[in-house]
Amino acid sequence: METEKDILDHINSPEDLRKLPVEQLPELCCQLRKRIIVECAHNPGHLASSLGAVELTVALHYVFDTPYDRIVWDVGHQAYGHKILTGRRDLFHTNRKFKGLRPFPSPEESEYDTFACGHASNSISAALGMATAAAAEASERPRKVACVIGDGAMSGGLAFEGLNNASETKGNLLIVLNDNDMSIDRSVGGMKHYLLRLQTSGTYNRWRFNAAKQLWRWGVLNDARRRAVIRFNNSLKSLITHQQNVFEGMDIRYFGPTDGHDVVTLVDTLRRIKDMQGPKLLHLHTIKGKGLEAAEKSPTIWHAPGKFNAESGERLEAGKQAETPRFQDVFGETLLELARKNPKIVGVTPAMPTGCSMDLMMAALPERTFDVGIAEGHAVTFSAGMAKDGLQPFCNIYSAFAQRAYDNIIHDAALLRLPIVLCLDRAGLVGEDGPTHHGAFDLAALRCIPNLTIASPYDECELRRLMYTAQLPGKGTFVIRYPRGRGKLAEWHCPLEEVSVGTGRKLKDGTDVAVISLGPIGTEVAEALEGTPFAHYDLRFLKPLDATLLREIAGRFKKVLTVEDGCRIGGMGSAVTEWFMDNGFRPTVRRLGLPDAFVEHGSVPELRHLIGLDAENIRREAELLSSQESA
Amino acid sequence: METEKDILDHINSPEDLRKLPVEQLPELCCQLRKRIIVECAHNPGHLASSLGAVELTVALHYVFDTPYDRIVWDVGHQAYGHKILTGRRDLFHTNRKFKGLRPFPSPEESEYDTFACGHASNSISAALGMATAAAAEASERPRKVACVIGDGAMSGGLAFEGLNNASETKGNLLIVLNDNDMSIDRSVGGMKHYLLRLQTSGTYNRWRFNAAKQLWRWGVLNDARRRAVIRFNNSLKSLITHQQNVFEGMDIRYFGPTDGHDVVTLVDTLRRIKDMQGPKLLHLHTIKGKGLEAAEKSPTIWHAPGKFNAESGERLEAGKQAETPRFQDVFGETLLELARKNPKIVGVTPAMPTGCSMDLMMAALPERTFDVGIAEGHAVTFSAGMAKDGLQPFCNIYSAFAQRAYDNIIHDAALLRLPIVLCLDRAGLVGEDGPTHHGAFDLAALRCIPNLTIASPYDECELRRLMYTAQLPGKGTFVIRYPRGRGKLAEWHCPLEEVSVGTGRKLKDGTDVAVISLGPIGTEVAEALEGTPFAHYDLRFLKPLDATLLREIAGRFKKVLTVEDGCRIGGMGSAVTEWFMDNGFRPTVRRLGLPDAFVEHGSVPELRHLIGLDAENIRREAELLSSQESA
Repeated sequence: METEKDILDHINSPEDLRKLPVEQLPELCCQLRKRIIVECAHNPGHLASSLGAVELTVALHYVFDTPYDRIVWDVGHQAYGHKILTGRRDLFHTNRKFKGLRPFPSPEESEYDTFACGHASNSISAALGMATAAAAEASERPRKVACVIGDGAMSGGLAFEGLNNASETKGNLLIVLNDNDMSIDRSVGGMKHYLLRLQTSGTYNRWRFNAAKQLWRWGVLNDARRRAVIRFNNSLKSLITHQQNVFEGMDIRYFGPTDGHDVVTLVDTLRRIKDMQGPKLLHLHTIKGKGLEAAEKSPTIWHAPGKFNAESGERLEAGKQAETPRFQDVFGETLLELARKNPKIVGVTPAMPTGCSMDLMMAALPERTFDVGIAEGHAVTFSAGMAKDGLQPFCNIYSAFAQRAYDNIIHDAALLRLPIVLCLDRAGLVGEDGPTHHGAFDLAALRCIPNLTIASPYDECELRRLMYTAQLPGKGTFVIRYPRGRGKLAEWHCPLEEVSVGTGRKLKDGTDVAVISLGPIGTEVAEALEGTPFAHYDLRFLKPLDATLLREIAGRFKKVLTVEDGCRIGGMGSAVTEWFMDNGFRPTVRRLGLPDAFVEHGSVPELRHLIGLDAENIRREAELLSSQESA
Repeated sequence: METEKDILDHINSPEDLRKLPVEQLPELCCQLRKRIIVECAHNPGHLASSLGAVELTVALHYVFDTPYDRIVWDVGHQAYGHKILTGRRDLFHTNRKFKGLRPFPSPEESEYDTFACGHASNSISAALGMATAAAAEASERPRKVACVIGDGAMSGGLAFEGLNNASETKGNLLIVLNDNDMSIDRSVGGMKHYLLRLQTSGTYNRWRFNAAKQLWRWGVLNDARRRAVIRFNNSLKSLITHQQNVFEGMDIRYFGPTDGHDVVTLVDTLRRIKDMQGPKLLHLHTIKGKGLEAAEKSPTIWHAPGKFNAESGERLEAGKQAETPRFQDVFGETLLELARKNPKIVGVTPAMPTGCSMDLMMAALPERTFDVGIAEGHAVTFSAGMAKDGLQPFCNIYSAFAQRAYDNIIHDAALLRLPIVLCLDRAGLVGEDGPTHHGAFDLAALRCIPNLTIASPYDECELRRLMYTAQLPGKGTFVIRYPRGRGKLAEWHCPLEEVSVGTGRKLKDGTDVAVISLGPIGTEVAEALEGTPFAHYDLRFLKPLDATLLREIAGRFKKVLTVEDGCRIGGMGSAVTEWFMDNGFRPTVRRLGLPDAFVEHGSVPELRHLIGLDAENIRREAELLSSQESA
């Protein structure tokens, strides 16, 4: 018999896991948790969520016949245990690294990964689809489908749409609500209060659950009778606990809340409910960061803590040298500065106060800052409502997540020309979070929307100036996109001055080739062009385009190279090409940007090199263009 | 004193309405209802929803101090009474006509119209924003905000996101749930069942409501105590009625359900709850089509019935001559034909089974057809889940509403290359429904997404062939866009043959200018080019582009005119321009399409003429291009 120390090292697939006696699972969970901590200590990743899901992960793979049965993870943050148990233990040290394991579960990587899980709240809908497909198959051994969704993701409208439809399914769908009262920051909204209150009813629920178990065993309860019985039970429970159950109100059978860290009971519970027909929801209470004291205390910081000492839990700052600030910090500090001067300014963030640094304003002006939960569409429409009645919202959404607010931007903001400053953080390549998180499509998708102003700052000072400009009266819906990570200026506290909307600027005079860039990738371009004869222009505004600048360029150059940190198709280069064509100019335009493919994960420099957006290749492309005969 | 007959004709604004004694309101409602029926009988519009909202409209304007207080309509279908009462009575005959009253409330038209209301489910978020702005103002006379949302719109995720946040507001927000168990077609999902059950508890609610009223009057109840009391009340109610209250579970005070056609009681109720602080929901039962027997019986047909006899309620078919079919009918019939042959095919529609003609499949193969409610994002992700596990979904969404599924198309479908046929009905100009409903942005927004195939059929036969092609194995995520309205072929039952993906075709040989079109607007182009020397190509696929065809065009023509029923910026013409530039060709490209502005409402021919997309102007543009010197 194997010693306890070895259990995890002998689990090469869930098949191996399922051979263990249930008594060994607590020890396995211990080992799995430790492994995650040790690995993440020197290879940073999404730590705290995965620690909270260890027992759940083990129990699900133990009870469900994966990969035939499906587990759909809502957001891959919680899935490190899943990766280690599904044949990727020995590759886990490559997690999130260029050409290593993908940051989030991906069907392209493993048959145990059933769906895309980079954007929150999609798991119920996807799992409902799988359960529907399973029901259509009429197999002898009907496939089971479980999804695991956090309480934060439950605030997303998509999750509600899924729940609303789940009640009509015939499929065997289990929704596991992994409730740790957190998304990345603390959860918000009615659902949070609601879930918190559900927590208080533990005693009653245990009693009811055990009673129900007996009734099922005795045959008193069966599927035909369950709805009426459930409803009566619920009423009774409501009376005792002074609360309502949203899920049962929607005909989704509800179990819990129960301790998500008691793996043996979890296995028992899952075994008993997994064959019940129809939609059901198991509500678990877990602790984000479970098993690492520092992480339990500060789960937001430990969501993705960077490197740390696995023994002491001390975080290792990546070199204490004076670094340039992150764009998000410039946003956060400037927003507060502006808000102190302009009482109409309010801040809106969909669950990313820390990620976008709106937490600065939230701490200083809590009454004027709104974290609306994972609800990007609502963030924009709510901002639009405030703007309609005289406030000046700054709504900050990561570029990739703003895809979820596309219609809201069109229908609720731009159509009415409402004064919202929509700040798209994490625009362009984001690095290790990979294809679901790159902000690739914003420029192409937004520039066709009438009435929008779209800008991207060259550097931190420009970000400040654009933010200042955007909140001046009469500017309408104003989009400012900027990337993840640090800029290049050590000193960025420039005065707040207005930028003339729709104007770019010449950064470097030159001959032969004009290079046009948009946004901070321009600093790469500047580096690339050092010592070359080529000119460099910062377009600054994608919309409206700077006709004067473009006319000057067209008049002086027959060759134009455009460089942007966004998709080539339909982006800034395309806009410039359209403009030249519409206005009777015919320079040769070569466009550099993200390719027509989902760009993988890796560090930003690795990815830039891969796709040819690094300084070296930009220079090479400019020289190549220069050496070509003009048309 | 005025005779009863005249009441409506003396209401020039809600100010006038508020001068009436409450006893006159029932008669006013009668007159208003009749006016709506008579007007819509010869000027077709959204009839049934507006009939159901007559008493509610009168009561809201009677009790609230509009326009200072805000009423936000969720979807303008219900707002005809609102228009007539707010100074637009004498212009109402121009409703939906070119240069006439706008189809939906619009702040650009009236100060009583507070927000954009073309896309469902946005009212709670917008109204919450307004309530938040009102709370920030600290006025002596705090502004009140009410939104009116249907039970159908309540299935949208955005509505849930709004509700989830409403519980945290300090503003004075009233959500009126106008529950007629319908969206456009019948409502679906857990929320529907839920609302139906709430209906049963009328007696208890009346009792509770009256008791609470007394307690407030006596000062026993106050805001500090209300949460605890509400919760106890709810528990009691749950026990009596065997049901849960979702809204109270989220700390939104709930009133109802009550009869939405009893205007006097409604006024009384609104008066009593309008000053209560915090979010509250008033649940009304109404009858869609109320007051017109035929409409009450068949509210889906009478949602927008076309012309009819106001006395008899007989619908007048617009000329009985054999018309060509609508594109949606070709879709609906072909889908059923394909589904009978391919057992993997399933149909998914977000609340538009009649509008997209998926009702044919729904009737014939109900087990394989899913109306998911107003939930476009879920429709795509649910389809993706089914596709992941072997089914072949056809998901049909109106182009303008598919903007709400933008992220789902990227993250849940294209990233995983899942075999979904995404049919975008109502693409391009839709006519009388105006700017919120034109399918303007799909081509520009979708073509930058990797892995997508994007096609548009030239005619009905092509639509059939593309649908057939799209469901063949290995085609991945396949978008087919087609317009509202009728095609030009009387006989369209062509054989189902595969179209080679990424190929266009030459429709007409020619010289000097090559005209490239995409989709059924090509038939306008064909008409325009009759008798001209110019060539005409049908691109058919926006993605992948037909390199062979484009190379042929570039080799033979120095001048290219592109014509598309979608936005000029970033659309098909832009794609063609990019391709020429990328591949070393330099023809002059002139692009025709929708302008960089929200196009108003009117008939499609009127709008095409307005923006220069009619045959006459296409021909003129081709001739103009021909007469220009080439670059």
